[in-house]
Amino acid sequence: MRLATLRDGSPDGRLLVVSADGTRAIDARAAASSLRAALDDWERTAPSLTQLGVELDKGSPAAFELDIGQLAAPLPRAAEWVDGSAYLNHVRLVRRARNAPPPATLESDPLVYQGGASDMLGSRESFRLVDPAYGLDFEAELAVVLGNTPQGTGADSAAEHVRLLVCLNDWTYRNLVPDELAKGFGFFCSKPATGFAPFAVTPDELGAAWRDGRLDGTMHVALDSVRVGDPRTGPEMHFSFFQLIEHICKTRRFGAGTIVGSGTISNAAVERGISCLQERRALETIVGGAPQTPFLRAGSRVRIEFTLPDGRAPFGAIEQEVTVA
Amino acid sequence: MRLATLRDGSPDGRLLVVSADGTRAIDARAAASSLRAALDDWERTAPSLTQLGVELDKGSPAAFELDIGQLAAPLPRAAEWVDGSAYLNHVRLVRRARNAPPPATLESDPLVYQGGASDMLGSRESFRLVDPAYGLDFEAELAVVLGNTPQGTGADSAAEHVRLLVCLNDWTYRNLVPDELAKGFGFFCSKPATGFAPFAVTPDELGAAWRDGRLDGTMHVALDSVRVGDPRTGPEMHFSFFQLIEHICKTRRFGAGTIVGSGTISNAAVERGISCLQERRALETIVGGAPQTPFLRAGSRVRIEFTLPDGRAPFGAIEQEVTVA
Repeated sequence: MRLATLRDGSPDGRLLVVSADGTRAIDARAAASSLRAALDDWERTAPSLTQLGVELDKGSPAAFELDIGQLAAPLPRAAEWVDGSAYLNHVRLVRRARNAPPPATLESDPLVYQGGASDMLGSRESFRLVDPAYGLDFEAELAVVLGNTPQGTGADSAAEHVRLLVCLNDWTYRNLVPDELAKGFGFFCSKPATGFAPFAVTPDELGAAWRDGRLDGTMHVALDSVRVGDPRTGPEMHFSFFQLIEHICKTRRFGAGTIVGSGTISNAAVERGISCLQERRALETIVGGAPQTPFLRAGSRVRIEFTLPDGRAPFGAIEQEVTVA
Repeated sequence: MRLATLRDGSPDGRLLVVSADGTRAIDARAAASSLRAALDDWERTAPSLTQLGVELDKGSPAAFELDIGQLAAPLPRAAEWVDGSAYLNHVRLVRRARNAPPPATLESDPLVYQGGASDMLGSRESFRLVDPAYGLDFEAELAVVLGNTPQGTGADSAAEHVRLLVCLNDWTYRNLVPDELAKGFGFFCSKPATGFAPFAVTPDELGAAWRDGRLDGTMHVALDSVRVGDPRTGPEMHFSFFQLIEHICKTRRFGAGTIVGSGTISNAAVERGISCLQERRALETIVGGAPQTPFLRAGSRVRIEFTLPDGRAPFGAIEQEVTVA
């Protein structure tokens, strides 16, 4: 099942069920007023949504042609937005560039931060750059959307709480990061609104590529229409989504509609390129002593699309342009 | 206007308008299905809620006796939970105890962290202690609840986005803090679910005590029925709520129902006591080389109540007991 959210002026938007090829959709208000509401009562709504998908495939007269530009993020307001950093190559590379050792517990204790969840951007919404000096960067990621998930959930039972997967662009103001982390309270102003690919998909849509809490495929990343990276997403995700869920549930529970992200996709093989400029700048620093690649500016265009091993692009593409705030 | 949320089995609960003495209430579903929904459309719902308050005062037959034990947090699921640390005495004291200098920008750049917003506890809900070794502590705080607040909102226009004020207990697992902060991504497992006083109140209920983005009064804190502190809340709040709002809006906007906290109330005068055990432990460390006061255990009872200079307690009391998870 593939779901999307149509902008309709309401804060949570209107839920749509989307065809397998991503070109047609059917209004799902008979099942739930929004994706958020659907997730609150998934056991009841999921069968209704599945049925709508069947009607859509049969050529329901209620179906309509989908305009991706009219879509909001699947969850314009999420319950929580928790982002990991599960690709350790990214952590090692960035720290090496600033001569800092990786944390001692890098391989045993997941890095996660709490992000802001009340303002998620749709796949075609432009990103309003507050100040070019803040050093705007993209980060291509995968994420899971949880149902109600109890405190104490272990990795072995985490799968039952994963309702959907999504693909996202974790916009980051790099130049605000050092001072914020130095204060000790984590990211805040350095993490503005996050952008999302148009479609949220149920795990069964992903076939064998979704296994043991990792989604295997390729993250295609382009800047101004030039390919900058196509890292593989499965093998180098050190902590699986199930392990990230176990970690965050150690001391509290999470409400339905919580998004848990993988962190920037990153491969050790340099030829796979980058899914954030920070890595290229880190490599430039390691090789030549200083970064050469500039951060984004008004007019920069970022395209992110995940494909499965069979070539399908289940989430659709993120195509965001940077504009002046 | 004083509002509360009745537990009714739904995730957001049912909105009530509460009498000035906190003993009676009237169902507000005619105005909004929940406080969350009311905040989404405040311009329309606030007059209806005010009207319900008038009917309540007139002795409406629809009013009923309020059972505080049946109340959830005013917002059982908030849009975001952003917590500051605006009482600098707290920061200085805690850092001094571990021989760490306060951050260089302590007085000019607010400390804030992003908290988890999908699981807020009611004033009488027990706190389930996962592990006594985690070092459970309370923190008595005030907070504002925002309406939709645009990116770039300045301190001078922040007041128009403040819909409500609330009082809370920012439960913290102290022994998880050092390792989490050392990883650089801020608090996560060290900040479990937050507890809230029963009533959310509009700024006009607070009279002259609410001024320039600070609420002046006394925070009465007791542990196991013994007074541990009664710090004054106004004068030593270095950054006002308006300044905290300006800070967080630097790079993004916030959805209606975002809660922004003051951080632990703390006074430089030692005789005002504490509103978190960490401060007493810091003082013990400074004086005697090591902390003496133990953290909380199953059976510990925390009571937090804010009073205005005229003696009224607009938010009602938090009375939470620690139980085994």
